[in-house]
Order: sequence, then structure tokens, then C-alpha cells
Amino acid sequence: MGDEVSNKQIVLRAYVKGSAKQSDMILKTSTIKLKVPEHCNGAVLVKNLYLSCDPYIRTRMSFLQGSYVDSFTLASPIQGYGVGRVVDSSHPNFKKGDLVWGMTAWEEYTLITSTERLFKVQHTDLPLSYYTGLLGMPGATAYFGFYEICSPKQGETVFISAASGAVGQLVGQFAKLSGCYVVGSAGSKDKVDLLKNKFGFDDAFNYKEEPDFNAALKRYFPNGIDIYFDNVGGKMLDAVLLNMRLHGRISACGMISQYDVEELEGVKNLFNIVTKRIRMEGFLVSDYYHLYSKFLDTVLPLVKDGKITYVEDISEGLESAPSALIGLFSGRNIGKQVVVVSRE
Amino acid sequence: MGDEVSNKQIVLRAYVKGSAKQSDMILKTSTIKLKVPEHCNGAVLVKNLYLSCDPYIRTRMSFLQGSYVDSFTLASPIQGYGVGRVVDSSHPNFKKGDLVWGMTAWEEYTLITSTERLFKVQHTDLPLSYYTGLLGMPGATAYFGFYEICSPKQGETVFISAASGAVGQLVGQFAKLSGCYVVGSAGSKDKVDLLKNKFGFDDAFNYKEEPDFNAALKRYFPNGIDIYFDNVGGKMLDAVLLNMRLHGRISACGMISQYDVEELEGVKNLFNIVTKRIRMEGFLVSDYYHLYSKFLDTVLPLVKDGKITYVEDISEGLESAPSALIGLFSGRNIGKQVVVVSRE
Repeated sequence: MGDEVSNKQIVLRAYVKGSAKQSDMILKTSTIKLKVPEHCNGAVLVKNLYLSCDPYIRTRMSFLQGSYVDSFTLASPIQGYGVGRVVDSSHPNFKKGDLVWGMTAWEEYTLITSTERLFKVQHTDLPLSYYTGLLGMPGATAYFGFYEICSPKQGETVFISAASGAVGQLVGQFAKLSGCYVVGSAGSKDKVDLLKNKFGFDDAFNYKEEPDFNAALKRYFPNGIDIYFDNVGGKMLDAVLLNMRLHGRISACGMISQYDVEELEGVKNLFNIVTKRIRMEGFLVSDYYHLYSKFLDTVLPLVKDGKITYVEDISEGLESAPSALIGLFSGRNIGKQVVVVSRE
Repeated sequence: MGDEVSNKQIVLRAYVKGSAKQSDMILKTSTIKLKVPEHCNGAVLVKNLYLSCDPYIRTRMSFLQGSYVDSFTLASPIQGYGVGRVVDSSHPNFKKGDLVWGMTAWEEYTLITSTERLFKVQHTDLPLSYYTGLLGMPGATAYFGFYEICSPKQGETVFISAASGAVGQLVGQFAKLSGCYVVGSAGSKDKVDLLKNKFGFDDAFNYKEEPDFNAALKRYFPNGIDIYFDNVGGKMLDAVLLNMRLHGRISACGMISQYDVEELEGVKNLFNIVTKRIRMEGFLVSDYYHLYSKFLDTVLPLVKDGKITYVEDISEGLESAPSALIGLFSGRNIGKQVVVVSRE
């Protein structure tokens, strides 16, 4: 129990400006005692099994001041969501052997001293990795970001960007279950096929083959868009604004097109917000974590009945994490990007 | 009654691109019979007394397709809000001698065939010209755009751009009555003085003397902005986004900085909408006209008790209308820009 073991870590080398590269992160080998130290009351020591690559991680790799998140600490492991098994605990709610998901770090073992964002895994009849996606932060993001922000009504038209990603694929399925007409954009033919054939989108297009987003949207939405679930920001948002319908809603979930650029893109068509009485609203899933069990109660039966499906892109080994993360920004992943650190 | 009289008109010469000029409008003299024609059932013939110069008029001077408003008809009088006296009527709700406000045209006499946006003036103990501002469209815009969209709470911080204008001066006074801390921006020292000394704003600044809007806002709102009432869009909106507080609200009322430019400005800081969970919402006052009497019931006593004041910039004569309108875009007017066509 008290033995010191080797602990491989992925640490940030230097703060990133412009495009992040794999070499901005390096593998480091440290050591750790597999026991919560005596002075760490309420802490949990976790063996990490699955790590989640999420676009927002890029923002923490920059040097930030007064942002909604803190910059990562240099030479310390990248922090992020993951699934793990409790190795030791001084917290009354977690005991050795428990499976947990929540905020951990990119290393083999993590001492979690703040358990505010740590949840016990109660249902193990689904793949554990789903707690990095469908049943974890991205799943709750899709659920609350769609139902709470977009107020969908049957028959409305819904557009989703980055639609095959961890969040988008679920938003599309929720929208279909709500009786909406759903179109998604993604960055390859394979992803477009996935949207249409696997996730049941009514239609989908490859934005990389569209020289004019406005023209593409007019083709797919001749009568306009009621709801836009925005994962990308930038040029696509600008084109969407031209195609929104009166009283449309935009759920501002993320803006991946803007995280990894030297210079932010300007959005020019905001006057449409006035003339079409559009509501554009941002949210962070953490504001809804108190409703997490409500989310699970709704989603688990849908998953078990086959009414919701989920696609993951699984990368093997902690060493692969930097490459997997960087791949998000060129759209290399197909579905939710997960890194397996260990399968048990 | 059936006599034909001369009818001076301000008509649009050609559709405008980029900056509108006075010479885009010309004075034309036509004739009109002071009687509603027999085939015009439900029409009202009005002698125009006061005309309203509103920024949105600029948008209708462009050649538009699929916009929320139609382009003006070339060689026809500019359409806009005004106050007038009924000369003849075939509409049961309006009779000769009634004072009315609503959608009319820039000419001496107007035959109003669609009375959907025509309201009878019920209270004549205040200046009639107020029905182009405080008691008309801009007043209702300020009232519904602030209370319905911003959900103000006591102690919150409110920023208003174009704050001494027809709408802004009222939003500031409503915000003060709601117990908010209120700062406005305007384009001259005189306007800034007006905001502080006449309208009771807590503070105000001249945006033309601020090379860095972000720095200015940080000075006036060291703890950030809860509510932004946006009349200008563009660069100021971009800077405000950097200074909004968590769960802030932006009422997108207008974007005057963008109506009269060749190339729209890009807004780069929209990611703040996500991270700060901002709600940005557009509205058009016409969606609230069914609540107009509720608005009057609230505002009239406030005006009569001296709790709300109003400043107008009155321009004499129909001939002065083009110059008065163009002045809005350089901020020449101080307060609500009105044109007097006739005082009786």
C-alpha cells in the first residue's frame, strides 16, 4: 500500500500561442506512493483508466489571465476528465475499489484533493469509457445545452456543427427524439456517413468541401434554421446568422475553430440577432452538475433501448494522449476521443 | 375638402451603399386631395406634424433582399414614425381631428392605408413631439428592451452605448429606477454632461476620446458589467464582451456603428458568451406593441412626477429632414432627433 511506484505523466512544456503541437507536451516519469498522505483529508488516490480529450483543454494550455479557467501549471500533468479506480481514499464517499469519473490528470495515478467534480460510477453494464463521453461531461453538455438553452419544439429545424464529435452526435440524436429536422456538419466523408447512417441525422455535409457556408446552409435549410448548436464559432457561426429564422436560438457550447489560432476571426453578421430576435446563450455544463442524476435517469434507458448510440475513437496508451488531443483540432478523430491508460 | 393641395415630400433618389449622404434624398413637390379616396376603405389621411429620425431608417435606404424590413421605394417618400392630425378617415377607429402617432411618411400629408401601426394619442398634456420618442416607438423600445430582455436586479451594473440617444437616455433612467449602477457612452462632452447631470447616470464617458474601449470599460466597471444595452454593435460590443460578468445579459437593440459602413466590422470576442454564460438577445419593439398601453400606464406617471425626463433635438421644417437623419450617424444630434413639419 505505501509502496512508491513509477508514475508516467504528460506535462505541459511551455504555454502555447497559436497552433498547439504534440511537442508542447512531454512524457515525464515521476513516482507516487499509492496511499493518500496523512495531511490530505478528504482526498482520493485514483488509478486512471480512461482519459478524455476535450477541445476546451486547448484553452488551458495558453497563458491566461482572468479567464473562466486557469492555465495549466507548467511541468505538471495536464488536467482533464477521466475514469479511474480508487486505490486509496480518505473521503467518506469514496472507498478503495470504487469506479469514479471526473476531473483527474494525465498520468497513471492521480491524487485528487478536490472531489467537487468527482462522481461515483453507479452503472457498470455499459462501457466504462462512456463516462468520458456519453455518460460524462460531454453527454451532460449535450443534454443540458440542448434542452435547457434551445427549448426545442417538434418540427423545428436544428443545425449542429462538429456534429460527429463527443457532444454533437448526442445533440443530433436528442433533436431527432424531440421530433426536429436535423442537419450536421463535419469534416470528412466518413463523418458525414456516420451522421446520416449511424446517428439518424436527416442530412449532413462536409464543411471542408463547401467554399461558401452560406450557400451550403441555404441548400440544407431553404426555410432557415430554428436552433443552432454551436461547437465551432467563427466563419460557420457567421454564415448561420444569415440563415437563422425569426426567434431562433443559438446554444453557444464551444468555438473549437478559435482555440488554436493566432488571431481570432471576426463575426460580422450579428445584426441578424436584432432583426430576427435571436437568443444566443452560452453555458457551462458545470452549472448543471447538480442535475447529473436526472440526466442519467433520462439517458440510461435510451441507451439500453438502443435509442441512443455513441461512437468513440479510442487511442491506446498514455503516451498517445498528446497526439490524440492535437488530432481534435484537425478533426482527425471520428467520434469521442478517448485515451486508454489502463483497462483495469 | 376635395381640394387638391401641394404636398412637399422627401424621397429617396437611389439605393445607398456605404455612407448615406444628404443628397441621397431630394425634395419633391407633389399634390394630394385632402380626402380619403372612395376605394381606400379603412384608410386615414393625416397631416404630418412631427417626424422621427431613427437609425434603422438607414437600413431601408439600402437595396435589401430577404431582410426584416423592405427597402424604400425609389422616388417615393421615406417612411417612418411620426405624429399627425387626421384630416379625413374611412376607418371607424380614427376620425377627423384625432391626433395619432405611428408609421407615416416624410411629406406634408400622408394617406395611411395600413393602420396596424397607427395609435391614437390619448394624452395631450405632454409635448406632442414626445410621441416620436419618449411616448412612442423609442420609449417602448427602451422599456421592453430593458425590462423584458435584461431582467435587471437591484445593485447590478448596466452599460448603455449611444446613451444620450432617443432610446439610451430612457434605458439609463429605467436602470437607475431599478436600483442599478449605470454608465453610458456618448460621442461628445456635452452629451456626457447630459448623461451625468440631466439623466442621473452614475458615470459616463466620451467614446471618441477613448483609444482603447476595453481599458475604458475596465476603468468604469472594475468588477465587470451585468447588463449591456447595445445600441451600436461593432468595436464597442467586442470590448464589452471582454468585460461582461458571469451570467450577464446583452440586449441587442441596434447596431448603429454598422448601418452606414461599406464593410461590416467583425466581432472577435464571442467566446466570452460561452465562458461567462452570457445571454445575448435581440428584439424588435413591434413584437411588444400589444403591451403599449401597459407601457404608457407605467411611464406617464413617472414623466408627470418628474422621475423621467427627456431631451429632444428639434429640427425645423420638412426640408431639414435629410440633414437631421444623416446627422444621427455622426452623432450630431443631442437627444432624440425630431423634425417639425408643422406645429398644428
